[in-house]
Amino acid sequence: MVNYPKNVTYEHPKTTWRQKEPTPLSDEMLNSVECWWRAANYLSVGQIYLLDNPLLHEPLTANHIKPRLLGHWGTTPGLNFIYAHLNRTIIERDMSMLYITGPGHGGPGMVANAWLDSTYPEVYPDIDYSEQGMRKLFRQFSFPGGIPSHVAPETPGSIHEGGELGYSLSHAYGAAFDNPDLLIAAIVGDGEAETGPLATSWHGNKFLNPLKDGVVLPILHLNGYKIANPTILARIGDEELEQLMRGYGHTPYMFEGGFDGEDHLEVHKRFAALLDEVLNHITRIKADAEAGKLNERPRWPMIIFKTPKGWTCPPVIDDKQVEASWRSHQVPLANARDSDTHTKVLENWLKSYKPQELFDQTGAPVEAIRRLAPRGNKRMSDVPQANGGLLRRDLILPPVENHEVHFSARGNRFVESTRVLGEWLADVIRLNPDNFRIFGPDETASNRLAPPVYSATDKQFNGEIWPIDENIATTGRVIEMLSEHQCQGWLEGYLLTGRHGLFSSYEAFIHIVDAMVNQHAKWLKVSRHIPWRKPIASLNYLLTSHVWRQDHNGFSHQDPGFIDHVVNKKAEVVRVYLPADANTLLYTWRHCLKSQDYINVVVAGKQPAPQFLNMEEARNHFKRGLGIWEWASNEIAGEAPDVVIAAAGDVPTLEGLAAARILRERLVDLKVRFVNVIDLMRLQHEREHPHGISDAEFDAIFTTDKPVIFAWHGYPSLIHRLTYRRHVHDNIHVRGFNEEGGTTTPFDMVMVNDLDRYRLVMDVLQHVPGLAIRHAGLLQEMQDARNRASLYARTHGEDIPEVANWVWDDSPTQKTGLKAVSATGGDNEY
Amino acid sequence: MVNYPKNVTYEHPKTTWRQKEPTPLSDEMLNSVECWWRAANYLSVGQIYLLDNPLLHEPLTANHIKPRLLGHWGTTPGLNFIYAHLNRTIIERDMSMLYITGPGHGGPGMVANAWLDSTYPEVYPDIDYSEQGMRKLFRQFSFPGGIPSHVAPETPGSIHEGGELGYSLSHAYGAAFDNPDLLIAAIVGDGEAETGPLATSWHGNKFLNPLKDGVVLPILHLNGYKIANPTILARIGDEELEQLMRGYGHTPYMFEGGFDGEDHLEVHKRFAALLDEVLNHITRIKADAEAGKLNERPRWPMIIFKTPKGWTCPPVIDDKQVEASWRSHQVPLANARDSDTHTKVLENWLKSYKPQELFDQTGAPVEAIRRLAPRGNKRMSDVPQANGGLLRRDLILPPVENHEVHFSARGNRFVESTRVLGEWLADVIRLNPDNFRIFGPDETASNRLAPPVYSATDKQFNGEIWPIDENIATTGRVIEMLSEHQCQGWLEGYLLTGRHGLFSSYEAFIHIVDAMVNQHAKWLKVSRHIPWRKPIASLNYLLTSHVWRQDHNGFSHQDPGFIDHVVNKKAEVVRVYLPADANTLLYTWRHCLKSQDYINVVVAGKQPAPQFLNMEEARNHFKRGLGIWEWASNEIAGEAPDVVIAAAGDVPTLEGLAAARILRERLVDLKVRFVNVIDLMRLQHEREHPHGISDAEFDAIFTTDKPVIFAWHGYPSLIHRLTYRRHVHDNIHVRGFNEEGGTTTPFDMVMVNDLDRYRLVMDVLQHVPGLAIRHAGLLQEMQDARNRASLYARTHGEDIPEVANWVWDDSPTQKTGLKAVSATGGDNEY
Repeated sequence: MVNYPKNVTYEHPKTTWRQKEPTPLSDEMLNSVECWWRAANYLSVGQIYLLDNPLLHEPLTANHIKPRLLGHWGTTPGLNFIYAHLNRTIIERDMSMLYITGPGHGGPGMVANAWLDSTYPEVYPDIDYSEQGMRKLFRQFSFPGGIPSHVAPETPGSIHEGGELGYSLSHAYGAAFDNPDLLIAAIVGDGEAETGPLATSWHGNKFLNPLKDGVVLPILHLNGYKIANPTILARIGDEELEQLMRGYGHTPYMFEGGFDGEDHLEVHKRFAALLDEVLNHITRIKADAEAGKLNERPRWPMIIFKTPKGWTCPPVIDDKQVEASWRSHQVPLANARDSDTHTKVLENWLKSYKPQELFDQTGAPVEAIRRLAPRGNKRMSDVPQANGGLLRRDLILPPVENHEVHFSARGNRFVESTRVLGEWLADVIRLNPDNFRIFGPDETASNRLAPPVYSATDKQFNGEIWPIDENIATTGRVIEMLSEHQCQGWLEGYLLTGRHGLFSSYEAFIHIVDAMVNQHAKWLKVSRHIPWRKPIASLNYLLTSHVWRQDHNGFSHQDPGFIDHVVNKKAEVVRVYLPADANTLLYTWRHCLKSQDYINVVVAGKQPAPQFLNMEEARNHFKRGLGIWEWASNEIAGEAPDVVIAAAGDVPTLEGLAAARILRERLVDLKVRFVNVIDLMRLQHEREHPHGISDAEFDAIFTTDKPVIFAWHGYPSLIHRLTYRRHVHDNIHVRGFNEEGGTTTPFDMVMVNDLDRYRLVMDVLQHVPGLAIRHAGLLQEMQDARNRASLYARTHGEDIPEVANWVWDDSPTQKTGLKAVSATGGDNEY
Repeated sequence: MVNYPKNVTYEHPKTTWRQKEPTPLSDEMLNSVECWWRAANYLSVGQIYLLDNPLLHEPLTANHIKPRLLGHWGTTPGLNFIYAHLNRTIIERDMSMLYITGPGHGGPGMVANAWLDSTYPEVYPDIDYSEQGMRKLFRQFSFPGGIPSHVAPETPGSIHEGGELGYSLSHAYGAAFDNPDLLIAAIVGDGEAETGPLATSWHGNKFLNPLKDGVVLPILHLNGYKIANPTILARIGDEELEQLMRGYGHTPYMFEGGFDGEDHLEVHKRFAALLDEVLNHITRIKADAEAGKLNERPRWPMIIFKTPKGWTCPPVIDDKQVEASWRSHQVPLANARDSDTHTKVLENWLKSYKPQELFDQTGAPVEAIRRLAPRGNKRMSDVPQANGGLLRRDLILPPVENHEVHFSARGNRFVESTRVLGEWLADVIRLNPDNFRIFGPDETASNRLAPPVYSATDKQFNGEIWPIDENIATTGRVIEMLSEHQCQGWLEGYLLTGRHGLFSSYEAFIHIVDAMVNQHAKWLKVSRHIPWRKPIASLNYLLTSHVWRQDHNGFSHQDPGFIDHVVNKKAEVVRVYLPADANTLLYTWRHCLKSQDYINVVVAGKQPAPQFLNMEEARNHFKRGLGIWEWASNEIAGEAPDVVIAAAGDVPTLEGLAAARILRERLVDLKVRFVNVIDLMRLQHEREHPHGISDAEFDAIFTTDKPVIFAWHGYPSLIHRLTYRRHVHDNIHVRGFNEEGGTTTPFDMVMVNDLDRYRLVMDVLQHVPGLAIRHAGLLQEMQDARNRASLYARTHGEDIPEVANWVWDDSPTQKTGLKAVSATGGDNEY
């Protein structure tokens, strides 16, 4: 893997979906599989326990054992068993496989397998095939400055962080889309199988196209126990479990082995036969698909793999059953260092794998093992899809300029910005037919990306399609399922294997995936510092049904806090954009679809809204990220303004502009500066975020001491948080969402939350020294206007015409000669 | 419902689980059911469309129609149909039923049914049985200042917010626990059935005790479509769907009706017969349970209710099929006001229900309908479990003083605080055997609440129980399933129906329920302002496997951001506690279990940790929420300190104390004040949070201008956010989690994140004017100590002994005469 050339399009290996006659394992192959398994188990136990003496060349003593035993054994032997058997089939059938480790605690096993197939020493040359290399392999595991105890970005072959559970199958399906030559073996832990996201992710099989997509082979690792409990699926009986799998649309193959002292060679033989049967079943489906003979959704095989938890560890320790119980979940022998008896038990356990048969004197795996490693990037730890950046091709991005929204005067044209974006995305889809997808719960139409997007593609679905259905087909670039977890998991799997996409959703309900975002952000943060992991496409969110326009729904659908959640992540990973109109939205998305290794959150309304910037202005504004809108300002060049009205977000921008207009008309002498923020991270200091700007730049735009009335899309505290070290901070006054939503006309909504134009004018009057007293009449007038508007809405059920019909007056500013001041720099290529 | 007496223990109605011979519906009953359904449908359409002319006493015109049509029709007729039929069975069988509306968009239907059974006019007397009342009923729906379009706290009979989807079944199971007389009809939308949380919540049936708990009857409302898509479960065929339900452990009863113009009376007859069969099946299970004849987990019935989406609306509008398609999801006739043709279609639609047969001239429902309303609180809209505060009994709380952790000197005793809490909770369980439960994914043992808790109870489970299992039984106060969504949903359902509990989980993974917390916080916020909704017990979180002690796991398990998430919610609803030792933890929980209508987040470590406060000190400290720890301070009474070291959280407190001790020894003349914060909200201003304190109080503790070095459990930005308006804010310097976790010894972890004692001392030196230069040697010494400690950890895999063995030195302070200064007030009853 270290030899991957840079800047070269990487061809991923092809699979031949070949049938194989069921023949018993040869003795040689049987020996290889058994030796691999024992070696992987030995290396796993070694990682958990050993500081030194890795090959047991001397008797084991306390000094060879780690002082703190941290790791998990329980799921590991099962994972190792499956890995060994899949290796055989890869070699015999020349297949391309990706191995996804759902049981997160299987970390030591996956490291062991990657070492055995020689990927690990290639990627980490100091962990080589020597006694010293094996010592390092053991020592680094779950050790300060070493590697995590879970499957992680550091693990070659993995696209799946083994922390939070529940996403193995959605990652697998995400990886399978548009990868027709790939088989993804998705090991599902019976613990994670209890989670909600996993429980619904079985339905991924209704979205896979048997011809154009890859194959997901779920293997339910039914070892029966969690940390301290049995698992549900192990306690409902085989019949019910099989019905569940059939109900999920699978053909279950039940395998039970390793109990009651069953001979390991027998278990291998039986599992090898079953695996051949399963792969032949898959191959038949593939062949039928290729021959056009598939008349219905295939019931893809899945395997129920019932083996003992902690398999091959000491069955009983201190008179308690450990193997085949929850007691083997973490470290079966907790006192291995402190108790001579336990040290001896550990030594015997390690020796039970007969390491002298598995490794030569230097520590290298013996030939019987090495021949079970597939060649090159057919090795599951080296498969390029597990390092998706290798396969990532830049999207061909059509010019956004073709979709410019023209207007005769600023603000006089009302457009659904997301529909304009949809037109551009339709072009993106046409130009990138096999590596770009849109995922969403049920929002593509509601969010106005459709109809345009459906001029270029359909929604992909493989359940029954009825004549009444529209824009649904067995292939298509849009995938919709009412599960944010699946959308997120699929997109992650798609991106991690080298492709591009976006997730379109409700702003309020995107919190459903908060925890998944955390995991992906961690993945990106860590991956950036692993040289052999190549950058992947950014994870892009389009949040259009946003907090300010939930007329159909109300309070239950209002929550702008996802931005706050994302901003807690590492600055190098996170970007947040709030374009105020369609033209800026286009440039925003052009940037997002070009970017790599970020989480981009774009918030944009879907309702008809006024358009303010022409294409050149939009491009420059996006590039700068924030800046003064001179045409909306009313100040004199060279003089400081009296007040700054700042706005971020489409609705706040509209209200801020309306407030600025009122001030221009009513307080002719007041020097008002209007600032718009599109790239939220520009507010931070350049020390804190790559997009941040210096104090000098910030001061030039926001002043050091004038009142800043900030109309903000989300919770006000976030603006304070981003700016609290700025000179002007004590004079920044934010209006945003204050959890007082619940009404059902747009202006009533902003009034209830104090973000309305009249309230903003009142804020200006109250914070510019002297104004409130001199203009007490205007203050009262604004309050009256609010009362009037509120009463009107509550009587008529719609907004008062003076607001509903309000249009920005684009007549020239009173003052002239203002020069634009905008932030510079940043990485916002347009 | 308006007549519920206050402060009186409210007895909830009993159910007799009686069999009923299958007899056809009488004509009279058939007519009642049909009329109820038509009336509920009429009232639902009226709510969506009508401003006026509610009884169609004059021809319908545009002026009678709302200018903005906001609401959802699609699911409503099905919900109304089921409601009418359940009414019959309640009357005939004298049952007690709770109706949970999974399809959130069914708002108008549930309001209509509550109005028909006369609960609505009782609760909202101005919405009475008159034309004026009906006019108000229609007008208020999804209208500014009115009620939401979804099922919500405002809806009598509901415990279920209809915003975010996926929690109907977990709410139903939560309501069923310890409610043996209650049947919960849980209507599951086929849209929400695609969500992860719903997909796993079917397994709730493995946790229900057939004798001691109530019955959940899931009714899958298979109307086939979402906003713009078919649903998955409608497109997998009946056979697979039935297998899925059997796999989930249910006996499915399939019902299909209303298609192809089937006569409504026939549909009623068939459904009534099926419902009787289902209820008899349930009754047999109940009888068997009571007779001790249940030998295995019952396969409870569930109903697959396949009816047309938008049933009874105009089948075709503008040549497009609307009924039985996604087009009826929201407002089938979008132009009812603007188009004369559509106005006429609407009028005909309304008249198709024959309102003159349903309501008398005054607008009151006719007798045929009213007799279908069960009596009093047997009405599903009036069932007291749906207003759980009515049934809530205060927990009997044993004295925490019995569990005091004694120590001979501060800091010299190491205790697992959560184990101490577990001992007290065991007492709570013994004293409250039927209204207190602990929910968790698999954490009760890992979090050290066990073993103590299992001396008092078991884990309740109704799958197979094997001899190897420990502390698992068919009844018990602890319920564990590896799904945070289920734990949260069950606890919510349990609390909302009037009981008490807590949710014990990993801090990092509690983000999984971020979105559910939002919904519950909204519920509490709104409920507080609805006079007839009585306060319920608080939603309590115990987050013990916290960010600073993830030795087994590392970065993947580190995230303290749940606190940030919760703090965005309305101040009146949210409380956050970070007790630093076991005695304060006890007082914290005593308070949490007494409190009402809050979301309490308690973060506390499970590892052995030093104990600092005796019982009286702990009580006073908890009561004050924050305060100076004089014994750890080194200042002179009447003089300002030179620096304040503040700490919140157990690990930060330990490091802060260690830093204070170093300073006391090395800089004898430096006046150090040590402040500990247990109630995070005390940091806010009293204007912003009920627990907030005045500037004067804050200044008395933190000073107005001295450097404050703040050792904080979570993301530093939160402390800034809570204090940015305080006088001293520019001099507050926070050390907390900076997303640089990933190592596996405790001190290495705090060093990597700059929260360690040496770094805190360096902060003091750097921020107290003049110190850094005068004591450059100490600064270097601290840096050396860090390097030494880091190197030691990375070499030996454990913490350097000078840290690992460090114990607070409780010798007297250098200065004397310090008087305690603490915040006063707040509502922290101890």
